[in-house]
Amino acid sequence: MSLSAADAAQQIREGTLSSEDLVKACLERIRELEPKVEAWTFLDEEHALGQARAADELRRSGQAVGPLCGVPVGLKDIIDTADMPTENGTVLHAGRTPRNDAAVVARLRAAGAVILGKTVTTECAYFTPGKTRNPHNPDHTPGGSSSGSAAAVAAGMVPLALGSQTNGSVIRPAAFCGAYGFKPTHGLIPRTGILKLSHTLDHVGVFARTLEDIALAAEELAGYDEGDPDTRPRARVPFRAVAAEEPPIPPVIAFVKTPMWEHAEPETREAFAELVEALGDRVEEVELFPSATEAWDWHKTVMEAEMAANLEREWLSGREKLSEKLRALIERGREVRAVDYQRALARIAPVQESFEELFTQRYDAILTPAAPGTAPKGLDSTGDPSFCTLWTLVGLPAVSMPLLQGANGLPLGVQLVGRRHFDARLLRTARWLAQQVAAA
Amino acid sequence: MSLSAADAAQQIREGTLSSEDLVKACLERIRELEPKVEAWTFLDEEHALGQARAADELRRSGQAVGPLCGVPVGLKDIIDTADMPTENGTVLHAGRTPRNDAAVVARLRAAGAVILGKTVTTECAYFTPGKTRNPHNPDHTPGGSSSGSAAAVAAGMVPLALGSQTNGSVIRPAAFCGAYGFKPTHGLIPRTGILKLSHTLDHVGVFARTLEDIALAAEELAGYDEGDPDTRPRARVPFRAVAAEEPPIPPVIAFVKTPMWEHAEPETREAFAELVEALGDRVEEVELFPSATEAWDWHKTVMEAEMAANLEREWLSGREKLSEKLRALIERGREVRAVDYQRALARIAPVQESFEELFTQRYDAILTPAAPGTAPKGLDSTGDPSFCTLWTLVGLPAVSMPLLQGANGLPLGVQLVGRRHFDARLLRTARWLAQQVAAA
Repeated sequence: MSLSAADAAQQIREGTLSSEDLVKACLERIRELEPKVEAWTFLDEEHALGQARAADELRRSGQAVGPLCGVPVGLKDIIDTADMPTENGTVLHAGRTPRNDAAVVARLRAAGAVILGKTVTTECAYFTPGKTRNPHNPDHTPGGSSSGSAAAVAAGMVPLALGSQTNGSVIRPAAFCGAYGFKPTHGLIPRTGILKLSHTLDHVGVFARTLEDIALAAEELAGYDEGDPDTRPRARVPFRAVAAEEPPIPPVIAFVKTPMWEHAEPETREAFAELVEALGDRVEEVELFPSATEAWDWHKTVMEAEMAANLEREWLSGREKLSEKLRALIERGREVRAVDYQRALARIAPVQESFEELFTQRYDAILTPAAPGTAPKGLDSTGDPSFCTLWTLVGLPAVSMPLLQGANGLPLGVQLVGRRHFDARLLRTARWLAQQVAAA
Repeated sequence: MSLSAADAAQQIREGTLSSEDLVKACLERIRELEPKVEAWTFLDEEHALGQARAADELRRSGQAVGPLCGVPVGLKDIIDTADMPTENGTVLHAGRTPRNDAAVVARLRAAGAVILGKTVTTECAYFTPGKTRNPHNPDHTPGGSSSGSAAAVAAGMVPLALGSQTNGSVIRPAAFCGAYGFKPTHGLIPRTGILKLSHTLDHVGVFARTLEDIALAAEELAGYDEGDPDTRPRARVPFRAVAAEEPPIPPVIAFVKTPMWEHAEPETREAFAELVEALGDRVEEVELFPSATEAWDWHKTVMEAEMAANLEREWLSGREKLSEKLRALIERGREVRAVDYQRALARIAPVQESFEELFTQRYDAILTPAAPGTAPKGLDSTGDPSFCTLWTLVGLPAVSMPLLQGANGLPLGVQLVGRRHFDARLLRTARWLAQQVAAA
């Protein structure tokens, strides 16, 4: 099942493909690969096929159909669905069935999508892994916390899936599994009805196998929702049109190593050196301004303090059922003082402003690794998110692109970071970059 | 100098009064009463007269003039002015001269106002009093923290003045001094360029001797400012027109005693009983819903945590120069845990929603005391803000009206609280209430 969401939607609209056949093909692919990949935590074939048949019927009725009509989508199991359980990766929420769809689920359904099922998340979208394995090599982690969504899309089980990122939970698994992953500007896609860890850091993200599909999904998902105070009423962004454009002049890219560069594996450093050389005068290496280098500490303070507040009920009522890692995080968070928390929050805006200058003065995007290397061997850890931390803290849009490969044959992700609220422009620059790499 | 701002502005516009004469009259009144009241911390007569003459010249030139053209305004000395010092009531900021006007000062100047001078604030707008005395009796406190603004307006030194409220710092001194005081909906008037104590609780407020003047000032001051993230772009509110309307049907008022009722003095209880009786079937006594009764604790947590963060520099560099009270507050605030701070913040929205229901289902406004009684004797304390705390926490608009009097001859304030973002409607209801009381 290698059809893209955009092609599938078009064929369904034109009547050359039925959603039922598409969903059947997805289910077949899942039956074949799921024993190895274990990307799904809830899948009701009949319910999925029922939605597909309803989409087909709607199309046949001659009524207007949405841009995702009949297209199956997987949802990380922290995203509420009124018709499926949402268990947040913890036994404490086993059997939990929300009354309402998350805002993004309502938007997907309004666009005609078939909600195929729920994908594996790490425990409460933090570090303790679920059962999912890397589709390229089951001995390697798929990354996390959106493990199942990344693996399902990369394995061709579904063309689109949603995840979330509070540190590196979209960009890293996308890189490890070899999918495109998109983390939008903070506040672009509403988080209403999604497990809240940190309103400052939480982002909804999208996985797909093409940039066109990322744009297709983002166009439907972006926008104000009164349940998410970090969203704002804004004009609708024509993601698909902008992402499909050629840049009017060739972009200028800033290659930023970040203070995490010392954690990058030798083959990552080499691969990026080659990539930068291949891009020639379109890339310039740029040093981060000093204030940005403290961002990792501020991120830690904010994440720990906010997660401790948001997971307080779980900690109070069932801390013995939480993993040691999560329990320790909450306990650290409970000790954070309000003054330190506020100080960390207050540092975000000035760093955002410095990046604004960087983008307005010269650069179209920042190029940086998505992770220190390819997916690490073993399933006990989901890998290192530190190449994502800074962009998550300051809410810049980022996309992970499966453009490189490690010596072990596993994908090596390239991360491109854009200016705040220029998400569609970032996808346009990403498409340009993919073309350059393909041509090189 | 008993002319209202609205009348003065009209006479200046019509050429029957010059701003210079008006400002001279204000300065004369100040010379006469300042030795007793001590409302001002900075006053440069020549600079004020220079602004007045410029306003007169503008008018004579035939150019369009603003709604406050030539009208003198006093500013609490925590509001930045580029042409006068702003010392925030602490020796730590002695001689501080800001580079920029606060957003509200820029708006006042754009409307044509003459910035007369800076009025006394308590230390950092907290509890430790400045030199100001109650104009009705110099042995009594004027209230705080906007002590000088309230006293100056009540004493007829200036028709309009700005203050701020983080707990009860506008409503309480207005009540004690016998002026009208207005604390708008949180986020209506931008706080850019004003000493920040608590972004959750800080409000700019207005003092005047008539409701019409409150509306006149509010109309110029309200509106989005990019420097204050709690303001939002909204349609301009026609404050003056709405406040001048007759209510289409007689309002229904909820009389709310709040859990602070036990602190109210016997004469306050009696005065409110009589007021409620006089208003007959237009008033109903309403019990607060249980969640609101915890608001005082949440307010304390938020105020202490945010003030400790915002005054950290003062505490680190000069805590020995802070009053014991302020130092103790900051030290309590430094111990507040981020989880408790976040929990308190999270309680605000549900209480706001409960008030929304109260207002949409039946009531036009809430009637409650502005303070436990008249201004207490003595200058060591600015009195008890607890009748203001709840409305400050949830950001409801409130107005203090000098409608009653204590046995000691001092004013006894009536507080009217409105629905969020219905500030102009609140002023309309307040005008109706003042008429009822006058007719009774």
